[in-house]
Amino acid sequence: MSDLATAPQLSLKAIELAKRVVRMTTAAGSGHPTSALSILHIVTVLLYRQMRHDPRDPWNPAADRLVLSEGHAVPVVYAAWADLGGVVGESPDSARPLTVDELDTLRAVDSVLDGHPNPQTAFPFFDLATGSLGQGLSGACGLALAARLDRLERRVYVLIGDGESREGQVAEALDFLVDNDLTRVVPVFNCNGLGQSDPVSQQQSAGRLALKAQAYGFEVERIDGHDVEQVIAALERAAAADSPRAIVAQTVKGWGVSAFQETNLHGKTLDEEAADSAIDELDGLEREVRVSAAAGAPVAAPVPSRPRREAVLPGRLGPPDFEALLADHKDLKKVRSGTFATRRAYGLALRELAKADPRVVALDGDVKNSTYSEFVAEAVPGRFFEARIAEQNMVSVAAGLAAGGKIPFAGSFAKFLVRGYDQLELALLSGVPLKLVGSHIGANIGADGPSQMGLTDVAYFGGLATVERPDGAPLVTLFQPACAVAAYHCVQMMADCPGAAYLRTMRPDLPFLYDPDETFEPGGSKLLRQGEDVALVASTYMVHVALRVAERLREDGIRAAVVDAYSLPLKDEPLRDVAAACRGRLLTLEDNYGNGLGAAVAGLVAEGVLGPCRLRQMHARTVPRSGRTSEDVLGEVGLSDDEIETAVRTAIS
Amino acid sequence: MSDLATAPQLSLKAIELAKRVVRMTTAAGSGHPTSALSILHIVTVLLYRQMRHDPRDPWNPAADRLVLSEGHAVPVVYAAWADLGGVVGESPDSARPLTVDELDTLRAVDSVLDGHPNPQTAFPFFDLATGSLGQGLSGACGLALAARLDRLERRVYVLIGDGESREGQVAEALDFLVDNDLTRVVPVFNCNGLGQSDPVSQQQSAGRLALKAQAYGFEVERIDGHDVEQVIAALERAAAADSPRAIVAQTVKGWGVSAFQETNLHGKTLDEEAADSAIDELDGLEREVRVSAAAGAPVAAPVPSRPRREAVLPGRLGPPDFEALLADHKDLKKVRSGTFATRRAYGLALRELAKADPRVVALDGDVKNSTYSEFVAEAVPGRFFEARIAEQNMVSVAAGLAAGGKIPFAGSFAKFLVRGYDQLELALLSGVPLKLVGSHIGANIGADGPSQMGLTDVAYFGGLATVERPDGAPLVTLFQPACAVAAYHCVQMMADCPGAAYLRTMRPDLPFLYDPDETFEPGGSKLLRQGEDVALVASTYMVHVALRVAERLREDGIRAAVVDAYSLPLKDEPLRDVAAACRGRLLTLEDNYGNGLGAAVAGLVAEGVLGPCRLRQMHARTVPRSGRTSEDVLGEVGLSDDEIETAVRTAIS
Repeated sequence: MSDLATAPQLSLKAIELAKRVVRMTTAAGSGHPTSALSILHIVTVLLYRQMRHDPRDPWNPAADRLVLSEGHAVPVVYAAWADLGGVVGESPDSARPLTVDELDTLRAVDSVLDGHPNPQTAFPFFDLATGSLGQGLSGACGLALAARLDRLERRVYVLIGDGESREGQVAEALDFLVDNDLTRVVPVFNCNGLGQSDPVSQQQSAGRLALKAQAYGFEVERIDGHDVEQVIAALERAAAADSPRAIVAQTVKGWGVSAFQETNLHGKTLDEEAADSAIDELDGLEREVRVSAAAGAPVAAPVPSRPRREAVLPGRLGPPDFEALLADHKDLKKVRSGTFATRRAYGLALRELAKADPRVVALDGDVKNSTYSEFVAEAVPGRFFEARIAEQNMVSVAAGLAAGGKIPFAGSFAKFLVRGYDQLELALLSGVPLKLVGSHIGANIGADGPSQMGLTDVAYFGGLATVERPDGAPLVTLFQPACAVAAYHCVQMMADCPGAAYLRTMRPDLPFLYDPDETFEPGGSKLLRQGEDVALVASTYMVHVALRVAERLREDGIRAAVVDAYSLPLKDEPLRDVAAACRGRLLTLEDNYGNGLGAAVAGLVAEGVLGPCRLRQMHARTVPRSGRTSEDVLGEVGLSDDEIETAVRTAIS
Repeated sequence: MSDLATAPQLSLKAIELAKRVVRMTTAAGSGHPTSALSILHIVTVLLYRQMRHDPRDPWNPAADRLVLSEGHAVPVVYAAWADLGGVVGESPDSARPLTVDELDTLRAVDSVLDGHPNPQTAFPFFDLATGSLGQGLSGACGLALAARLDRLERRVYVLIGDGESREGQVAEALDFLVDNDLTRVVPVFNCNGLGQSDPVSQQQSAGRLALKAQAYGFEVERIDGHDVEQVIAALERAAAADSPRAIVAQTVKGWGVSAFQETNLHGKTLDEEAADSAIDELDGLEREVRVSAAAGAPVAAPVPSRPRREAVLPGRLGPPDFEALLADHKDLKKVRSGTFATRRAYGLALRELAKADPRVVALDGDVKNSTYSEFVAEAVPGRFFEARIAEQNMVSVAAGLAAGGKIPFAGSFAKFLVRGYDQLELALLSGVPLKLVGSHIGANIGADGPSQMGLTDVAYFGGLATVERPDGAPLVTLFQPACAVAAYHCVQMMADCPGAAYLRTMRPDLPFLYDPDETFEPGGSKLLRQGEDVALVASTYMVHVALRVAERLREDGIRAAVVDAYSLPLKDEPLRDVAAACRGRLLTLEDNYGNGLGAAVAGLVAEGVLGPCRLRQMHARTVPRSGRTSEDVLGEVGLSDDEIETAVRTAIS
């Protein structure tokens, strides 16, 4: 203990950082200084003493982690990082120390100091972007799971605001932490009592939060978050605990600066003159501490050495042999009868990929026997995590696993993954390779009704697919295969995507459309049936419908081409040739709501890259209801065979 | 008490219903009979004794309500409803009793008995669709708030599964209930111990749930959910309580049928033969009860009389006079300087509409001083509800308020409303007029960075805007005004939409584009500047950028038309004329991700309704970062004035 920083040293350091927080936020004209000052002493103790990390090597996977769930409080971390000589940069090769002068570039467009923690702006101390509240504890659980898989002993400290603790995701994360015994995650609740617009509810008071955490199974220590000795002691006890333990810290928003405390100045900064006064006030506090302070600079905990890692060349999926993959499984008879659900193919593919690639992990939301991630749970149980019915937490845990070097596939019904879209968006800011898998897509699911159907996902992911990552890859690549063989190959393509990916799988067992060794590509589509009169461009269930309708039309001499457009962002090949062959008569077919595949094709048409075309987009036009068969439901939403046939006849007339 | 049903009577009734559940789910081949049987006795006591309701008039607003949060357990409610002679139908005029024979139509496409509770299939006993889990308690809070506003004493009973209690939204709802003292909401946790794929986590055991509810501030009563006397007593105590009280019931999944209990048969039904055995088994239980049962049928609690209601002719918004509306508010100087943020106009419009229309209520997620719903909170505090940082709960509470006859406007940053998309989707199944308002849209917000920017909302809502309600209105109408005047008028249009609506508001104060008495319409767009060389079709911030670029191009003799496309689904007028005038050269401009306005225009182009056109869609092409000005950030994502100008020159070359 004697070689670690003392409480007076840390108190002095904290005041020094407070002054920088005031100056940098005044320079930026924004930046939440009051929240930053409420975590001032906790951050100081963490970064200067408690955390086992080397500011010159934030990439060391063995080093302790900080997740700042209340991301807006970040200026104090930036101030500490500059003071510690912490490095910034895209990679160790381009690393350079952050300078104190740079603090004044906070929030400038060419600064590494983004408004909220953002690893993508070359600030590698953070693994995970934060800023949308209530997600940090979940992400920390993911980082801790990844560490456990890699046999690393790093701890993950999480600072959570009292106001943001209202987000139910925090409760989900507490449950997940206990279920998985993630005692290396240390949640610290920062109770400054003030939200953005009002005092925090009594339901999120320090006392109530402590009671709640206890009810979730935590030992809770309550402290004064500005008493450095209490902060040190509590963090040491929590770090050493072998059962779930949380800290509830009472703090002051705008600590040390009376101008910040007169009213609740959330997100407000001081003008130059007020900043000068604030500095004077902090100087006064400094003098009071200095009287009793020992000399010397703070000294931090020892840095863990970088673990040696063998380079792993992961195996890859070959073409599926479903009979062999199923062995004596009851689903074998489905394959032998010539039909197989894409969701089942997903489960088998992920099982095989998990066996071949140690980075692959799977998560599910209590529907693994519907999504078929149960194949992974059975074969590779150590890399399957049951996240229960809590999709927000599941997606953020997956993001943490991805930030920890894993390739997580997180699945549930597509409908329920909507619960995790905000969490996905935050993960995308972190640039991590998160893979989501939504089953039971479309109106074709039938009997369970609209509350279980994924109907809005193509529009949403279609938007994300229009954005490029810094490496040029799509921000998200969407896959929506119509056939089990394609679904199997999609899993490898998802793993290969540098960015995020989303797979849509179907409930029904449907006929195979491809040979096992067919090749697929992100953004690709396949011409399944030649035609000259009209092209039916479809996805998932509607590919099968399109083939059926095309066959029926053939009897009347109408030759309809059928294209399986299984991925977005959609490449213009081979649509260009099909459009030309069909004199530009195009019909898109999808059993979700609109602004999906049809909008992607419309974009190509309107841009002119497919030549002269006229497109009709067919999709679910009304809210579906239950129906005992897929066709019953499709008939209700404007997608019966007859309606499609009529649309074709209109298109060619 | 003596005139109410006795426990033995109710036990017999429960067994009768159990038999119907077995039969109807066997007939349907699906339908979660095991979950239904776990709530058998609770539902029986509620519908036959505890609830003050008249099955012949489920529309009576004074009657008690049931929200079945675990919607998949619904068959037992259907069985009871048929037995009680409960009516079904779109409205009182078309009401008819549900027959026992009809139970076998469960989940058929022409049946009123949807797979999950669905008021839109003419089953008016339910106010709120359920099926996506963990949302019922929030919706019940909304129904209770609406009742309080209407001075109705109805109670709202909520059945919540143990597995679904993992959803953090349940925790959010418990907090909201306590904060708002909604003691007429009675949460009943149904602990059958089995999820879909596994036993429920110990974190959701009956004991742990009871501890948690206590920590949230509830008195908790634990009961055997199949002991009718205990159920009666607990419900009576909870209904009479004047502080938050919850019931935790231990139950058996598949109660009464041993074939259902051998393994966890979630969502599985029996074949005909097994169903016969199950009926035999239930007959045996019936004989045991009958020995001790008093004669006679169950008798329910008295039905509250229908409240008399004066027809209210709500007032409407006129053209805004912002100077008068602001009086001596500090924002007056903004208006006088000629700029005003759309978010401020929203707040003022909603304040005025709330004064004029007693149905209007507002909710916010601790950012009312950013969304400007604080104008409502100050002027009409009784109809403003602070939902804190818990967007999922906020959206579901709003859905409940809407189902209770209110017109709720629920606002937060557009980015954070993504948290409530699944809840919105469930509300859309209920057909309720929910209005969402997302502020701080687009990359233009600048300094706070991407974790605070609404970038994906147009794609998502653009999908919902392609769907029609039964009344022909869009499922959701999207408004994205560029000017404070337009934003003000949008609020009235939102209230007038029979369905849901979504408003996007901006952070910056921007110049006015319209006179106060300008007229707007859903799906409309406005030609702001004539041109013959190219048409810039833009929304929100980019309208102002388009006008600036058009002015610059004018110096080079290029005449660019500018269209403010402020609503989706987009009507083809006046785009048709503009496209013709500009020889089909179109450029869309939006500072969100793609698949938004551009996709809507592309759809019209591809369909051919705008004549021959070529469209380039410009939008945020990369993930934004922080920047101190809007233009800094727009420049980073491919939307600088120079890039737009280059695109125009390319389009006309």
